[in-house]
This record gives sequence, structure tokens and C-alpha cells, in this order.
Amino acid sequence: MEKTIRILGIDPGLRRTGWGVIETLGNSLKFIDSGTVTSDGDMDLASRLRQLHDGLSEVVHGYRPDEAAVEQTFVNKDAVATLKLGQARGIALLVPSLAGLRVAEYAPNAVKKAVIGVGHGDKEQIHMMLKVLMPRVKFKGSDAADALAIAICHAHNRGGNRMLQAAMAG
Amino acid sequence: MEKTIRILGIDPGLRRTGWGVIETLGNSLKFIDSGTVTSDGDMDLASRLRQLHDGLSEVVHGYRPDEAAVEQTFVNKDAVATLKLGQARGIALLVPSLAGLRVAEYAPNAVKKAVIGVGHGDKEQIHMMLKVLMPRVKFKGSDAADALAIAICHAHNRGGNRMLQAAMAG
Repeated sequence: MEKTIRILGIDPGLRRTGWGVIETLGNSLKFIDSGTVTSDGDMDLASRLRQLHDGLSEVVHGYRPDEAAVEQTFVNKDAVATLKLGQARGIALLVPSLAGLRVAEYAPNAVKKAVIGVGHGDKEQIHMMLKVLMPRVKFKGSDAADALAIAICHAHNRGGNRMLQAAMAG
Repeated sequence: MEKTIRILGIDPGLRRTGWGVIETLGNSLKFIDSGTVTSDGDMDLASRLRQLHDGLSEVVHGYRPDEAAVEQTFVNKDAVATLKLGQARGIALLVPSLAGLRVAEYAPNAVKKAVIGVGHGDKEQIHMMLKVLMPRVKFKGSDAADALAIAICHAHNRGGNRMLQAAMAG
């Protein structure tokens, strides 16, 4: 008998990290909850990372997901912005791993393809498709929506994602 | 009466993160220990970050430093390398912060200036000056040596580093 799998998707960012929890059973998707963890820009960097850690830990321990997925963010900006994102991303990968979860990574175009059927599209299309795929979905802001899209991507790919994960870890 | 302050310096890297613990009392410096935490390149990224987290947590709980300092790494390489470093750096900043420590950040030239007197110089000069400044120093490899240099930089700047830290957090 197939088992319901609860998935945590995370869209990392230093200022705002989105999260979304869904359940998948076979081909069905069920919305559980979503939200955003924020860090205080007036605090020093280490304290901001601790805020992200504490917020995500609360989500992991509150919703007890079985698996987690994080977007393999691609950055076109300068090195300083990339370093900042990397630091937030490190926390997003660490927290579920500390709870013993396997953490998959997906490229942005894989996430879009899973949700809107093609590897490109704007935020509005993603938001609309989230509502089609999970009629009871609720999210505030794009970070939470992106996190839900990442969770859906993992629901579609979790069978075969070990190879992808290995390939992307480089 | 002045108090002895124990400082943890960290030189972050995904493959190898160096650490060094020193004590400072007034102008004196005392070597305590140094080492390197490594992650297994065959494992997925989240597990590697957990390895760095676990290794650094062991150092923090074993040596109970009062303050920590991490190098504000500057990267000339591609975005992928910068993102990788950022992820490791996120863990290096997080772990002492989770233990309640204040974590200062220093630019590489500030670290060199504190150890060899000028803002530029090669690794050999840093290694030699570590031996001059702390005759009992022991380190294996450049990562541990760099971490000790960061700790020394913090010992020299800790009085006035709040402003620097704020300026660098941007």
C-alpha cells in the first residue's frame, strides 16, 4: 500500500525564506501550510542566520515532514549577493538535514516544469497553477508560493531524484 | 581587573573548514588548539553541511570560547564556487551564534594586517608570524593557520569591532 509522504519545500533568501508543506499520495497533492521566515536586516549576519535557523527549525518540528527540497538557486548578480544567498541557502539545507531528512535540490527550470509544464514562465502562472493543483492552497507572497512549487517538483521527481541530486552536488 | 577572553577563529570552506582557539589577556596571546573540520565530497550537499555543523559544534562545546570571528571571504571565482563557499560560511557563522556567541567578521586584508603588520603577504609569512606571536602554536595545514590568524585579528580589534561588523554586514 502506498504511503502518504509529507514534503517541505524551501525557497531560501537572507531577508525572506519561503516554506511550504504539502502531502503526496500517488498522483494526488494536498496543501498543508506555507509561510515565510524573515531575518532582521538591522542585526549582524550571524544573528540573521540564527533567525532563519530558528524559524525553519520550528517549521520542521511543527510539521514533521518526511522529505525536504530546496531550490538550486542560480544567481546572475554580483559575488556579494551570491555569497549572501549562499549563506541563507546553507541554513535551508542544514536545518532539515539536522532533523534527519533527506534534502533534494532542484534547478529553477525543473521547478517551473513540474508546476506549469514548461521550464519558463512568470510568477503569476506559478501562482495560478498552484491553485489549480491544490484548490485549498493558501500563501502570502512569492517566497511561500515558490516554496510550494519546489515541494510539488519534489513530489513529481522524488522517485528518481537521487541521481539528479548527486549530479547537482557536483 | 582585565579578564582572559577565549576566541574561536574560523576559516570556512565546504571541503575544509579551519578552526583555531586562542586566549587573549591585555596584549598577550596564548595558543589553545587548532584543527580542521572536513566534509565528505561523495555525500550530498545537505549532509556535508551537517558534517561541518557537527564538527564545529564539537569545537564550540569542547573549548567554550567567549567570542568568535569568521573571515569575510572575498571570492574572485565563478558564481557556483561563490555559492558553495557561502553555504559553508553560513554554517561557520551559525554554529557559534547558536551557542550564544557574538560573531565578528573581518576582511582578509584586516587579518593579514593584524598578523604580519601589512595588508598583503603570503601564507609562509602568516605561518612564521603565528610562531613569533605564539611560540607554542601548533597547526596542520593552511586552513587551521588562517583560522588562528582570524582569531588574532579579533583579539586586536575586538574593542572597536562593533562598528566594523555593522559596516560589513551592509
